[in-house]
Amino acid sequence: MLDTLFAPKSVAVVGASEIPFKWGTYISSNILDGKFKGKYYPVNPNIPEVFGFKTYPSIRDLPEAVDLVFITTPAKTVMQILQDCIAKGIKNIVMITSGFSETGDEGTQMEKEIVSLAKHHDLNIVGPNTMGIVNTHCLLYATGAITRPKPGGISIIAQSGNLGYQIMEWAESEDIGIAKFVGSGNEAVLKIEDYLKYFNTDSQTKVILMYVEGVDDGRLFVDIAKETSLHKPIIALKAGRTEIGSKAAASHTGAMAGSFSIFKGVIQQTGIVLADSPRELLTLSAAFDSFPLPKGNRIGIITLGGGWGVVTADECAERGLVIPQLPQSIKDELDKRLPPFWSRGNPVDLVGQPDFQLFKDAVELMVAHEDFDAVIVLGIVGSKVFAYRAAEAVYNLGKMEKSVFDDFKKLLFIHQKEFLDRLIELMNRYKKPILPVSLSKMPGDETVHSDGGNYKVVIYDSPEEAVLCLSKMYQYYNYVDKRSRVYV
Amino acid sequence: MLDTLFAPKSVAVVGASEIPFKWGTYISSNILDGKFKGKYYPVNPNIPEVFGFKTYPSIRDLPEAVDLVFITTPAKTVMQILQDCIAKGIKNIVMITSGFSETGDEGTQMEKEIVSLAKHHDLNIVGPNTMGIVNTHCLLYATGAITRPKPGGISIIAQSGNLGYQIMEWAESEDIGIAKFVGSGNEAVLKIEDYLKYFNTDSQTKVILMYVEGVDDGRLFVDIAKETSLHKPIIALKAGRTEIGSKAAASHTGAMAGSFSIFKGVIQQTGIVLADSPRELLTLSAAFDSFPLPKGNRIGIITLGGGWGVVTADECAERGLVIPQLPQSIKDELDKRLPPFWSRGNPVDLVGQPDFQLFKDAVELMVAHEDFDAVIVLGIVGSKVFAYRAAEAVYNLGKMEKSVFDDFKKLLFIHQKEFLDRLIELMNRYKKPILPVSLSKMPGDETVHSDGGNYKVVIYDSPEEAVLCLSKMYQYYNYVDKRSRVYV
Repeated sequence: MLDTLFAPKSVAVVGASEIPFKWGTYISSNILDGKFKGKYYPVNPNIPEVFGFKTYPSIRDLPEAVDLVFITTPAKTVMQILQDCIAKGIKNIVMITSGFSETGDEGTQMEKEIVSLAKHHDLNIVGPNTMGIVNTHCLLYATGAITRPKPGGISIIAQSGNLGYQIMEWAESEDIGIAKFVGSGNEAVLKIEDYLKYFNTDSQTKVILMYVEGVDDGRLFVDIAKETSLHKPIIALKAGRTEIGSKAAASHTGAMAGSFSIFKGVIQQTGIVLADSPRELLTLSAAFDSFPLPKGNRIGIITLGGGWGVVTADECAERGLVIPQLPQSIKDELDKRLPPFWSRGNPVDLVGQPDFQLFKDAVELMVAHEDFDAVIVLGIVGSKVFAYRAAEAVYNLGKMEKSVFDDFKKLLFIHQKEFLDRLIELMNRYKKPILPVSLSKMPGDETVHSDGGNYKVVIYDSPEEAVLCLSKMYQYYNYVDKRSRVYV
Repeated sequence: MLDTLFAPKSVAVVGASEIPFKWGTYISSNILDGKFKGKYYPVNPNIPEVFGFKTYPSIRDLPEAVDLVFITTPAKTVMQILQDCIAKGIKNIVMITSGFSETGDEGTQMEKEIVSLAKHHDLNIVGPNTMGIVNTHCLLYATGAITRPKPGGISIIAQSGNLGYQIMEWAESEDIGIAKFVGSGNEAVLKIEDYLKYFNTDSQTKVILMYVEGVDDGRLFVDIAKETSLHKPIIALKAGRTEIGSKAAASHTGAMAGSFSIFKGVIQQTGIVLADSPRELLTLSAAFDSFPLPKGNRIGIITLGGGWGVVTADECAERGLVIPQLPQSIKDELDKRLPPFWSRGNPVDLVGQPDFQLFKDAVELMVAHEDFDAVIVLGIVGSKVFAYRAAEAVYNLGKMEKSVFDDFKKLLFIHQKEFLDRLIELMNRYKKPILPVSLSKMPGDETVHSDGGNYKVVIYDSPEEAVLCLSKMYQYYNYVDKRSRVYV
């Protein structure tokens, strides 16, 4: 139903402008500079052209019934523009304009009129008071605040435009792919449930990320969420969890947030994965978009430094994951490769041996073994920083040739890439997640490694992030597994 | 007692080398490339010089009794070297060498002999099996893994060298200042309590950061921690909190971790601030090193986007902080400056008004008011990214001159710097912390802003970090306040 809205072949922007810091400029410049693949028509009766495109005085004057109209002009102009859309046979509108129910009684009245018109004429209206929409796959970047994450599998529904925009910005800077975005604004017509339903059927969406302040029709929301989460994971942050947060939410979007404990109880039936913060929303979504799900909670840990193994074991235990004993066969194998005093336990402490073949072999030993459902690898990715800086000090002191130093640096990156490629190979072979934690970064380092295939490797900054992702992926796996058994 | 060890005027490195990837090279090259302010003597009977410095065959041959000796040669050589140190009148040794109690019975026996010798001759020995030490204030960077954070007020005691090194690396990359570092290794002679006691009296140490796996003498540790935390905050991560983590710790450092619930109970009496992860250790330490302590838990929130206010209010409530109603006087004042539909509540939503004077005035209104003990400012720092990208799109489309665009970019950085300077001024005037959360970063952005004075501004990536720091600072303030009342 919302296919044309999210993947239009032609768009018009009412109020289009090229004067900096106006909404009509934000939307137009973002669409054009973002290289939107479809047609763009500026609508503005007061100027002849916008960014080199001839303007049209009104929607009625457009040469075609465009797939989607953005409205950026003041609230009092909106009804007439909607009438023009109806006259032209246009169904899809993104109403950037604010000044409706969020501002008081007069605005609420105007919003009611819009809803009534939309129902009567079957209009799909995003907003009003929305940040806009994005579809990376047709290069439609049409938000007021500019960010352009690369195409990927995560679709975002945000009941705060500002917060949703920020998540896209993080995604862009961390090279995490996004499919679609919608700031749902006042949800006068289209509501969070509608977007959820649409993303459920959207083939480009693999994971749904939601920022939720409130839901009008809880029953309907739960039904759609239940149906959706059987097919794809939904990662949600519920804001207004506390009384004071809920009050703040009411004054922000007017959403009646309701009690979080009720919400949380209901959510558990839906399979929605709850995040605790905006950052976690993105972290979890990227994990679900990248790794195979763990089919159990038994974790193998490989580390280059003992302390990190301890910290990670604690984190696992605190999140309900299990650290099984190291199987005898793996002990026997590693006995041949490690110094006699190695720990002979899980976590496997490779005691800093700088041996990339050993690293790869150790990971395979763990992931291949039936006692482990997932593997966390600490410090191997990123260990090049240690080697690089050690070499750099010698080079700085004049005891290493520049060419040797440069070649060494290249080699370190090659080793790291080979290791990451190997993790993807192993995930494809064993269908288990392998999560590397790289504590050190260098310029040129990736945060997500992909060979273009089905699985990707997210490289975590800290063990607690990797453990969190594993525990939530296992929780979701369990939910889907149980539901499938019961209902099929 | 440990002054000379941590601030030596002369050091010798036994086993010094210039061949890459040996411990004698790591330590020597790090000291020299780090521009150590004192004298450096390489000790090695097999080569004539190291990095241009003439070597000495043994400690006995040195031209002076150096303040500190690093030993990097194999375990079996160590007793003789210690004898040489005693003969030369040298008291301070950092024993990098591994192969002692961490490797089995034979090593344990050798370690006992070292302890006995050290006691008899009153030697201060760090390690064995240590990553090394750092004192930024005399540019002594003497760890095996190379990282060189700038001078500052945080001193680190790490019962895992690898983990401690990593925290310094994060500090370096985030521009957080460090005073001193010690990897305590096997703690054969000097123990965590000794370092704690020393840092308590060390004038360069404002905050103590500890990574703890286990403590030998719990009673003594508690007494020293209690005494220390009255004077400066101690931020600690206890690893081995869970049974499985504790097992991993035992195999790592041989520490008997003991029950975390007992530890946690005892810790509460000491005023130690507990962190949940290595990252938190650094985040909390930087906050304590930078901001004035909040003298209450009533938080004012200022935001540019409603969603962020809601999220932050939730976080505050969940961490025991209070969000008071907005005082009438502030409402009246902001009524004059904001559009009529503004929220008129705390969080104060400035509804995206791009007005730097308003930002500064709003922060002062909040921080000056007796109803607030601290202020969190969301999205003002970092909002330049929004403005920059909006201008950039127009520039890219050929509708802004390059010089205008460049000047605009400069102006954005100037505005941000002025705002941060103002926060420091206000903290000095009102002695309350003001924590900015900047969600977007650009190249050239700081993570810590300082005018060289007493207070600094840490710029947080996410509201949950700012809230965590405030809640822990308030907890510590309360502890010191109560102890002072009882005991004085």
